[in-house]
Amino acid sequence: MELKQVFIHHVFFWLKNPTDQNDLVQLEKGLRTLTEISTVKSFHIGKPAATNRGVIDNTYSLSWMIIFNNAADQDSYQVDPIHLKFVEDYSQLWQKVVVYDAI
Amino acid sequence: MELKQVFIHHVFFWLKNPTDQNDLVQLEKGLRTLTEISTVKSFHIGKPAATNRGVIDNTYSLSWMIIFNNAADQDSYQVDPIHLKFVEDYSQLWQKVVVYDAI
Repeated sequence: MELKQVFIHHVFFWLKNPTDQNDLVQLEKGLRTLTEISTVKSFHIGKPAATNRGVIDNTYSLSWMIIFNNAADQDSYQVDPIHLKFVEDYSQLWQKVVVYDAI
Repeated sequence: MELKQVFIHHVFFWLKNPTDQNDLVQLEKGLRTLTEISTVKSFHIGKPAATNRGVIDNTYSLSWMIIFNNAADQDSYQVDPIHLKFVEDYSQLWQKVVVYDAI
């Protein structure tokens, strides 16, 4: 099934303490607060799979993928108070974030 | 809706000739051949959105995201004759590929 006319927002987090399971649990807990934002249509929280080839980046700690209906919904998500609070409460956990937005 | 118990395979392609619209069309045509592989549950073909913040990587040419039911389905996709033929026929178009697999 083709996902058409959607906005894919895919974020990869690298934790400051990548081996700290508690930090991982905390960040996942934070991400789950974001699922309350009404424009979030579908989401996936993931960790690196066991695949391992040269082109694969499996160095990240958590993958956070959201499907929005459109770009405007993603824009409103960015400034939603729940999202702003998430950044305020949890950003000390990560050292790096990479975001890919695809339409 | 949470996408649970799935395997997300997200590939980003950087074309050798990123401004060549024909190469972009060709690569998308190639990607569509992969959708015939039976284990592909859902897929999305995308281009960079208009979003632009420091953490966003919008330098890629095409985003290719597949949702599989599990890791075994992704493994079989990798060695499917359709996938091998795609790499043979289209890999001269890209200069770089980055893959993120998340479970």
